[in-house]
Amino acid sequence: MTKAARLRESLKSENIIRVTGAHNGMSAKLVEEAEFEAIWASGLEISAAYGLPDTSIVTMTEFLEAAAQMEFVTSIPIIADCDTGYGDECNVMHLVKHYERRHIAAICIEDKVFPKINSFMRGSQTLEPIGRFTSKIRAAKSAQQSPDFVVIARTEAFIAGLGLDVALMRAYAYAEAGADIILVHSKAKTATEIAQFMKRWTYPVPIAVVPTTYASTTTQELQELGVNVVIYANQGMRATVKAMRTLFSDIARCGHAGGREDLMVSVQEIFSLQGMD
Amino acid sequence: MTKAARLRESLKSENIIRVTGAHNGMSAKLVEEAEFEAIWASGLEISAAYGLPDTSIVTMTEFLEAAAQMEFVTSIPIIADCDTGYGDECNVMHLVKHYERRHIAAICIEDKVFPKINSFMRGSQTLEPIGRFTSKIRAAKSAQQSPDFVVIARTEAFIAGLGLDVALMRAYAYAEAGADIILVHSKAKTATEIAQFMKRWTYPVPIAVVPTTYASTTTQELQELGVNVVIYANQGMRATVKAMRTLFSDIARCGHAGGREDLMVSVQEIFSLQGMD
Amino acid sequence: MTKAARLRESLKSENIIRVTGAHNGMSAKLVEEAEFEAIWASGLEISAAYGLPDTSIVTMTEFLEAAAQMEFVTSIPIIADCDTGYGDECNVMHLVKHYERRHIAAICIEDKVFPKINSFMRGSQTLEPIGRFTSKIRAAKSAQQSPDFVVIARTEAFIAGLGLDVALMRAYAYAEAGADIILVHSKAKTATEIAQFMKRWTYPVPIAVVPTTYASTTTQELQELGVNVVIYANQGMRATVKAMRTLFSDIARCGHAGGREDLMVSVQEIFSLQGMD
Amino acid sequence: MTKAARLRESLKSENIIRVTGAHNGMSAKLVEEAEFEAIWASGLEISAAYGLPDTSIVTMTEFLEAAAQMEFVTSIPIIADCDTGYGDECNVMHLVKHYERRHIAAICIEDKVFPKINSFMRGSQTLEPIGRFTSKIRAAKSAQQSPDFVVIARTEAFIAGLGLDVALMRAYAYAEAGADIILVHSKAKTATEIAQFMKRWTYPVPIAVVPTTYASTTTQELQELGVNVVIYANQGMRATVKAMRTLFSDIARCGHAGGREDLMVSVQEIFSLQGMD
Repeated sequence: MTKAARLRESLKSENIIRVTGAHNGMSAKLVEEAEFEAIWASGLEISAAYGLPDTSIVTMTEFLEAAAQMEFVTSIPIIADCDTGYGDECNVMHLVKHYERRHIAAICIEDKVFPKINSFMRGSQTLEPIGRFTSKIRAAKSAQQSPDFVVIARTEAFIAGLGLDVALMRAYAYAEAGADIILVHSKAKTATEIAQFMKRWTYPVPIAVVPTTYASTTTQELQELGVNVVIYANQGMRATVKAMRTLFSDIARCGHAGGREDLMVSVQEIFSLQGMD
Repeated sequence: MTKAARLRESLKSENIIRVTGAHNGMSAKLVEEAEFEAIWASGLEISAAYGLPDTSIVTMTEFLEAAAQMEFVTSIPIIADCDTGYGDECNVMHLVKHYERRHIAAICIEDKVFPKINSFMRGSQTLEPIGRFTSKIRAAKSAQQSPDFVVIARTEAFIAGLGLDVALMRAYAYAEAGADIILVHSKAKTATEIAQFMKRWTYPVPIAVVPTTYASTTTQELQELGVNVVIYANQGMRATVKAMRTLFSDIARCGHAGGREDLMVSVQEIFSLQGMD
Repeated sequence: MTKAARLRESLKSENIIRVTGAHNGMSAKLVEEAEFEAIWASGLEISAAYGLPDTSIVTMTEFLEAAAQMEFVTSIPIIADCDTGYGDECNVMHLVKHYERRHIAAICIEDKVFPKINSFMRGSQTLEPIGRFTSKIRAAKSAQQSPDFVVIARTEAFIAGLGLDVALMRAYAYAEAGADIILVHSKAKTATEIAQFMKRWTYPVPIAVVPTTYASTTTQELQELGVNVVIYANQGMRATVKAMRTLFSDIARCGHAGGREDLMVSVQEIFSLQGMD
Repeated sequence: MTKAARLRESLKSENIIRVTGAHNGMSAKLVEEAEFEAIWASGLEISAAYGLPDTSIVTMTEFLEAAAQMEFVTSIPIIADCDTGYGDECNVMHLVKHYERRHIAAICIEDKVFPKINSFMRGSQTLEPIGRFTSKIRAAKSAQQSPDFVVIARTEAFIAGLGLDVALMRAYAYAEAGADIILVHSKAKTATEIAQFMKRWTYPVPIAVVPTTYASTTTQELQELGVNVVIYANQGMRATVKAMRTLFSDIARCGHAGGREDLMVSVQEIFSLQGMD
């Protein structure tokens, strides 16, 4: 059973699927260890891991290698954040061929214009015309080889400030075009936009959300709203930065790394995660 | 002024050089932010980041890309941990050509046999005959283009349990062969092996150490022993694992990521580190 | 002296610079062996070598690796064909930083819209507004570290059927924006478009041309027109395809590869080119 | 049906399987176009394409990417030449996991010592002890996921001048250890070594040969000897070098590329091979 097939199986369950972001093999292994259902190969985390802006300058090749590296060392499905699809329909078909061949279970493309900028940046966002984006979704679906491969269409209607009606209209259009899951992104402080959306969403296509700004909304609450997939998209990277920053300033200040076992696992623990036992 | 030249400048200073391990662009940026003098492109951290064992299965290409990714986004020198040199003299010359061309300031090769296993693993280690290893050092020195490029020879004599005399003999031979710095590795619980070594080391070639097991020995103490370079080789990775493990289990348990700002930096902070301001 | 500096030196000479396309280390070595002045890391050749369309689906990472591979094994300057710059000004600045760091002497960007399609394809081409493209040129120039690095702006005005006046207007605008060389592309059967352009070009910025369709126009004739750089952009790849196709059908037909030494160099000759002597 | 399964199917046929070497996507496409049964991702061709020696300095990562690039654009099985396995049993298991995941149908490892040197080089070759090499074969077989994946063990006994008995003894040991095909390499001017071997080979494991030096021996003759797989391992690269060398010196001499259509396919032909129609 492929990982894509396993992802489809989970989608049939009554429980919400919990997906957590990662940026390399190790973080992916830790997502699996914590028993999440899938790994989000996060565009933000991967570009941040490179130390580069999340503005379409990291290439498909680099994102793909990061996702494949995660896949290589874990056994749960990988959902790859593929930004805008890196160009037009041809680029989307090409990426689907690559990601599916690398055993990625699902890809997610969003309706912003290439080159994009991260959704949580201040400033306005421009969306692609609906017709152009549905054409990308159709291209993605036509390029997959196995029926199990999952294509997620993400609408940034709320992010762009276009409101509920546009969000719904885009979501319906993307579902009609063949998207297997619709990701509705929101940067509201609470889950109100998501709640309003879910109240009016009647189409039998699962909905995914990313509670970054409305971080206190629980999995349980989202499930009660009817959400099918919840993605903790960037918390892992944010925790690694906090941890290294704290430890590095500590070492610099104290002149040694001793006595901070509370901040670190042991070297033996790293070996164990690397499979060196 | 190249980064290699800057590293040589620092070596002339009376102060010990503090070098901290990293495994990708972001961790390298945080090492620079904490004002260490150089970045250690750590073999253990990079293989762990891949989620793979530190046993010579990660290739030179993969280690090089990780080091170059660090170099691309930072302005302090990178010292690359190159394991055993990935083969014989030809492999060493090839790696020097690659690393120098990618603006890495220094490479470090160790006197274990390829394929190697991490020095902190239980079990015995086999060292290369001295003549074979000095031949690699000479190969490395002959391959560099700029006189500023730094070649570090690392002896695992203490790790292999061969004692002080062998450690000194190997260190002298490596210095004679042209090594610019000798890294004396030890997994003793205290810095005694290092202290004994330093007492007898009279050759005018700088010494580097890696206080992983003797973690409470301070920079100040090492400097008083005459050590020139201290490398905090793996603490960053160990902190990221601890941080993600704690946070992921928290999210899994609580059903949300809210209220754990103590464990994470903000998304805006990530943007700032990515240069997205 | 860097390769970029050497390329600038050649541009000062009275003789036209002859540049020949390559797609990997070996073809680059053969360009150098034939004593051309520089190597064109051709977008068409590299995408063809991948077996992929020349339509912006091969990524910057892949093109960069191919160019860097050429640079690694040769000693003459590499001029890298960078299509449209792979996005907007940010992408262009990012590519300049990458290519310059990889010791590429020059990059060339063209005024088509991303994702682009090869200039010799039937069908129409859309050009970027002049203001957007000059903004890319300025971004490229601002990103280079050494004053020697060369930025080539390529206008597809003739390819898009826009005529001499538009070609000149664009060329002037690009030169004013800081381009070090203007590449005037033409797919006319003879060099007439180029001749007309050169007659009216008075600006002190060198002109490069690509005689693919007007293949019989000689270096001498182009030099007399005032052209400074001639690029044989794709002939190498076209020769390799012809050669392999002929030989493979021969082997398939005859059931052996013997007696066709006229079509092949010896294995020893390959060794010699690989530096295995 | 996977490509590995298709390769196994072909092995059941009465006809010898003809495999031809390639070094990138385009050459692989031309092998398929000429209707060979499989593609040899040749170590010699790939290292030569990089412009680098065939002496274990090109890494597994680089060889794997080249093979995967071939696989991505063709539909016949890829057999990957994996030199000595790039290290010990761990390296072999790691490579099998990587190659199988990249849809390569078969890998081939040889019984020389790492780092190796090409078999056609003058000078002596050292073979691994039989026990060490059979241990690698067992490691390879234990690492594959699908029973269809094919592991080829190559003996260099003839190359090392060890004679028929050693060749047979090694071949039997490798077959007993689980190798799916035995490749018997020879650099004799005629197929006599192969003929002698085949006369005494009675084990039900297929035999592959590489007629580089005995190039005039036909497929038909090899089939009559009982050989199951014939590999034209390096002729494609040798033809590309001859073709580019001829054409480049022609362009340099004549000052133009016109009138040499006999040496090149058209640009349109390249487009067609790239799938740009």
